[in-house]
Amino acid sequence: MIYTGVCAMTKIAILGYGTVGGGVARVLDVNPAQVAASAGEEVALGAILDLREFPGDPHEALVTHDYRTILEDPSITVIAETMGGVKPAYEFTKQALEAGKSVCTSNKELVAKHGPELLKIAAEHHVSYLFEASVGGGIPILRTLAGALKSEQIDEITGILNGTTNYILTKMEQDGAAFDDVLKKAQELGYAERDPSADIEGHDACRKIAILGSLMTGGYVAPDAVPTEGITAITAADLAGARACGMAVKLLGNCRMTGEGLEISVAPYLIAAEHPLASVNGVFNAVAVHGNMLGTSMYYGQGAGRDATASAVVADICEIVRNAGRTVPVSMTEKPAQLAPMGDATRRFFVRVGREHEAEVLEAFAESRTICTEQGEACILTGPVRESEFLEKLGGIAGVRNRIRVLDDED
Amino acid sequence: MIYTGVCAMTKIAILGYGTVGGGVARVLDVNPAQVAASAGEEVALGAILDLREFPGDPHEALVTHDYRTILEDPSITVIAETMGGVKPAYEFTKQALEAGKSVCTSNKELVAKHGPELLKIAAEHHVSYLFEASVGGGIPILRTLAGALKSEQIDEITGILNGTTNYILTKMEQDGAAFDDVLKKAQELGYAERDPSADIEGHDACRKIAILGSLMTGGYVAPDAVPTEGITAITAADLAGARACGMAVKLLGNCRMTGEGLEISVAPYLIAAEHPLASVNGVFNAVAVHGNMLGTSMYYGQGAGRDATASAVVADICEIVRNAGRTVPVSMTEKPAQLAPMGDATRRFFVRVGREHEAEVLEAFAESRTICTEQGEACILTGPVRESEFLEKLGGIAGVRNRIRVLDDED
Repeated sequence: MIYTGVCAMTKIAILGYGTVGGGVARVLDVNPAQVAASAGEEVALGAILDLREFPGDPHEALVTHDYRTILEDPSITVIAETMGGVKPAYEFTKQALEAGKSVCTSNKELVAKHGPELLKIAAEHHVSYLFEASVGGGIPILRTLAGALKSEQIDEITGILNGTTNYILTKMEQDGAAFDDVLKKAQELGYAERDPSADIEGHDACRKIAILGSLMTGGYVAPDAVPTEGITAITAADLAGARACGMAVKLLGNCRMTGEGLEISVAPYLIAAEHPLASVNGVFNAVAVHGNMLGTSMYYGQGAGRDATASAVVADICEIVRNAGRTVPVSMTEKPAQLAPMGDATRRFFVRVGREHEAEVLEAFAESRTICTEQGEACILTGPVRESEFLEKLGGIAGVRNRIRVLDDED
Repeated sequence: MIYTGVCAMTKIAILGYGTVGGGVARVLDVNPAQVAASAGEEVALGAILDLREFPGDPHEALVTHDYRTILEDPSITVIAETMGGVKPAYEFTKQALEAGKSVCTSNKELVAKHGPELLKIAAEHHVSYLFEASVGGGIPILRTLAGALKSEQIDEITGILNGTTNYILTKMEQDGAAFDDVLKKAQELGYAERDPSADIEGHDACRKIAILGSLMTGGYVAPDAVPTEGITAITAADLAGARACGMAVKLLGNCRMTGEGLEISVAPYLIAAEHPLASVNGVFNAVAVHGNMLGTSMYYGQGAGRDATASAVVADICEIVRNAGRTVPVSMTEKPAQLAPMGDATRRFFVRVGREHEAEVLEAFAESRTICTEQGEACILTGPVRESEFLEKLGGIAGVRNRIRVLDDED
């Protein structure tokens, strides 16, 4: 395709020239015509902030170590913050917005923690703060919620929001392998970090569902307020038992509107094999949304990866340029969302218990039934029970190896 | 939620008060606050055009039989055309646009046939013509292509675009049932029409992939130019053979950018069980998009149904209102897209053949292998072969029961 120049041009700066930041430069280099068509004018890279030097990099000459040169450059109007972490990204973002520059970011930690404040500052300065890439890398879910689904009452959002844990669960399921072995392999392949706790303990998914919950309510859900369980307790026996139930085990972020407020959590769940999320495997992410008119729709894509995440950052840059001079509205405010206690939820549970205590579990929970028995264990599916009641009763029964929530589809 | 009124208001008219038109009224009735938030102002129903009367309907008083009263009502600025068919929808749409009213529609037949002309008229009159609901009912795929994915080079779009045929293939696969029996059941359930030919012969999916192909190229693909095969030749034996190959059979609309132009088709394809489209079952639709940076993303939802389709029409209404005074850009023009002959494509094929001719097939195509044999038949998977060469050679072999293309993922 031949690219015919347009007169107007927007200059952007990248903060943090790592994986995602480098990807942003690459998208601008590879797709200049598409970016210009989307933004309505040419988008050029004006500066890169990083502590390191990049000898031989095509954009070497744009690298600066001094953030002030970017803040004070009036020709730079949009900033892509791809540093990650809260410090110094929070201060840098604030300073940019206060200087009248729009910011877009892939930084879920910062958005989950300070999103409402940064959005408020952006609005005060008639600029925008967008963060499509912070949830589900290459899945355009925030833009869809803000656009196509905005005339819907969103009842529920459920997502596979972390590629590392989904890869681990998929491999455990497919190969019958143990958690530790798969984790080790994932680390070797670069799918899991050397310190995998943010992924496997659910903190990464927690930040993402907190962002989605905030957008769903139009208020703010602090990540600390989200009950979060990771996948470290899941065993090959759980996955085999789930399969015998006709279900899969997935680490889900879930938020659901109830009469008491927003019920929100991150935890492993059993989901029916027919559920569209059940067949989302490997490092892919997906988000299912239920609207009162639209029913269930689902959005699937790469959860991370340099180019996919960078493409989402660039889509935000284009939206900012298209809307230059005004603040792109984002439905997140400082008002705390009303949360429903998780213990109030009624749902079914999967229980794996030593055979000698099977009868006690079956007796404790109405409509329970044993799905399968193997190697001295029974896998039991309970009937619907209030979570707080379930946990209290289960605490009184010995020999329980694991218990996992069941996501029941209300469609 | 308490709805606090806003001063500005847009009045719309519905043309055709059938399933989708009734759904549009229902979305406006049920979600007024969400619609106002999305549109930026209140959206009210001003008139309904239908030949029938609707005694007892809450909007009975708005029904008119005379289109001129709508065309001549300056307070009505947006029209939802939910009549279907080309006549008189084409004339009505043209008149509305020429009268300075924006139009949105679920009418895939009209868009596939006259979309470029109607878009041109809309632009000339500074109004919009939008048709999100024409492809995949409740899946916001057009808006995603025009927004989040606009900075991508889209290489390929593949979709399950017809719920009726997907329901039939799913049931045949799950129950091992014959095509005719499942079709009869689908008709009883209301999933298939009394005259099912538009669905089962692929014409409905053809219109939708023609629209997607037009948008992908920025030109125009006439539905007549799309090689189209339906599912009437698919048997339970094909599905069993596909399963033995680790694949599923789906009716796909596919368009792929090649060096020769756009390769576009509607046909049953074998796809790998791991492909995200393989697990899209029943009446659901899904569209997978491959972009040069984003990789594969997929969009899944209800393909039809009153409320889902109506929700998509209302999302278009909101976008039109938000952009009042200007034409929302749609990437489809009258310029014919350059199409690559389907016979030039190289792919693998699935062949079901009588055992007595198995050896001939294996010999004719390099890298062929027999996957399974049953009841005197062999299911063979060929190596990659040019389609025109394949068909010519296969024509010379007796005893061929069926041949189905294989969709190979290039990721």
